Amino acid sequence: MSKVLVSGGCGFIGSHLCDRIMRRSDLELCIVVDNLWTGDVQNLAHIRDDRFRIVQSDVERFQTDLRFDEIYHLASPASPPWYMSEPIRTISANLIGAMRLLELLAPGGRFGFTSTSEIYGDPLVSPQPESYRGSVDCTGPRSSYDESKRCTESLLFETRRTKGIDLRVVRLFNVYGPRTRPDDGRAVSNFIMQALSGQPLTVYGSGEQSRSWGYVEDIVDGLERYFWSDPVNYPGPLNIGNDREIPVIEVARYISKMFGNLPIHHVDPAPQDPTNRRPDLNLARRTLPGWKCKVPYEKGVQLTVDWFRAHLAQQYQDQLTLI
Amino acid sequence: MSKVLVSGGCGFIGSHLCDRIMRRSDLELCIVVDNLWTGDVQNLAHIRDDRFRIVQSDVERFQTDLRFDEIYHLASPASPPWYMSEPIRTISANLIGAMRLLELLAPGGRFGFTSTSEIYGDPLVSPQPESYRGSVDCTGPRSSYDESKRCTESLLFETRRTKGIDLRVVRLFNVYGPRTRPDDGRAVSNFIMQALSGQPLTVYGSGEQSRSWGYVEDIVDGLERYFWSDPVNYPGPLNIGNDREIPVIEVARYISKMFGNLPIHHVDPAPQDPTNRRPDLNLARRTLPGWKCKVPYEKGVQLTVDWFRAHLAQQYQDQLTLI
Repeated sequence: MSKVLVSGGCGFIGSHLCDRIMRRSDLELCIVVDNLWTGDVQNLAHIRDDRFRIVQSDVERFQTDLRFDEIYHLASPASPPWYMSEPIRTISANLIGAMRLLELLAPGGRFGFTSTSEIYGDPLVSPQPESYRGSVDCTGPRSSYDESKRCTESLLFETRRTKGIDLRVVRLFNVYGPRTRPDDGRAVSNFIMQALSGQPLTVYGSGEQSRSWGYVEDIVDGLERYFWSDPVNYPGPLNIGNDREIPVIEVARYISKMFGNLPIHHVDPAPQDPTNRRPDLNLARRTLPGWKCKVPYEKGVQLTVDWFRAHLAQQYQDQLTLI
Repeated sequence: MSKVLVSGGCGFIGSHLCDRIMRRSDLELCIVVDNLWTGDVQNLAHIRDDRFRIVQSDVERFQTDLRFDEIYHLASPASPPWYMSEPIRTISANLIGAMRLLELLAPGGRFGFTSTSEIYGDPLVSPQPESYRGSVDCTGPRSSYDESKRCTESLLFETRRTKGIDLRVVRLFNVYGPRTRPDDGRAVSNFIMQALSGQPLTVYGSGEQSRSWGYVEDIVDGLERYFWSDPVNYPGPLNIGNDREIPVIEVARYISKMFGNLPIHHVDPAPQDPTNRRPDLNLARRTLPGWKCKVPYEKGVQLTVDWFRAHLAQQYQDQLTLI
């Protein structure tokens, strides 16, 4: 029976991962540690299970006498406006968070970390294999996220080299879907929120910059298989994402059309916004045979719109109840 | 009058920097914080000055009520065998060290950081300008040093962007000279120690890999000018080093010859040892007009050999006194 800790479990991806963990019959205990900076307890409000607990705490400062068989470290903001507004806190969550969590790992325990395609920066090769060393400006406005993910990878791989831990590092490419924060600030949720309120859609720059959007259920399928369900013995790093690259403008046009041809406004490009990002999935296919992103973005966007509608209706209902 | 803190001030470069600081007439106080992991108090034993204090402490845990007008953060091992043996401690010294020191900076104070050419990794362009984003394997055995320096740069530049500090970041290329540890483990001191004990010189790989060795007095001239003496207003990063690139084997042959043609043994290359490293100094020349490395390596090596001889004689003398 396993004791599992998930840092950032109230967040977008973390909460979906918790849903998968709670299905496990070998689970003794799942503790979520989250400071609710970008996470939301509502994302886990549906879980009613004696084996499940949420502790509101910075992961760096989480105190417990328990030791965990599996630790999944997802605590970090992931959207540029969020991490750019509190860069030191972002570095601390990732790196000092990982240091603290390593202290809580039981002997022989497994440590999973969600790194990011951002460690490739503005890549000079496409698609990006795991061996690509990246092109990150370590003094730039996105660097707190990119460099703290890079340095946390280093911390974990060097801990593995010198002390031996069962390590699983994934590099997640863009993910979208239900439980994204309405104020997340990235393209898909921005477009949907603008569309739901009947505003024009805002595209940064020409919109020709492309992204590889993976629907969250597909991505979490990959995490579940890599982190615990498949008989894998590979520390990573492992790219997990959708290798269908779509220009931002195409998604904007699709959502515009869904809502009766809303206008699209172009504004200045975001600083150091990568022009392309696409995973090389050869290693993922070898490591997790048969896994791939199955949900086409047209369907994924529809599911996300449905969730946003329901979520906003619920929030409205809650506000009415309060009055 | 200035209160100055130097972390890692007992180290090789730190101690030379302290010598320059102690010449300043505007100095009120200079505190060195050093845990003596790779530093040596003997490097500062010659300083007798009421304005000078050494505190033995990890920089991350240094406690004081003082606030400093200038902080120079040099605390970190810099030689691969040292940082590879304690990677987590290396990351902590650089990054959590910088976080702690930022708390000790007086309002309007200046923060200087010695980053490294290692942030360029195994570079794909030569010479390396400051704008080059590097080629570092963030999961490799050198990554604790490279990535913690990168992430500390990020921490400092992002602190500057969000809170405004007077920042000075240098990227130091290879430095050699007096006060290198005899067991430092890098090429020049290895060759000299082997030569002084009449052993064959050990070269990793073919020795065709080149380095840009800067003699420590030249390098510290650059630091002194950039950190406080020149009217500079530039946060960095600024390359400081020698742009004369010399193959490792050439230095081995030179030292071999000095000692009567000692044999040179080749052993396996060090893991992920960069094949070349050479600073683009255009920005340094514009920022610090007239500054350059003046000491040719033949003279620098001779001065270093002289220091090693005297240092080892002194150690021997101390041991005799103890008996």
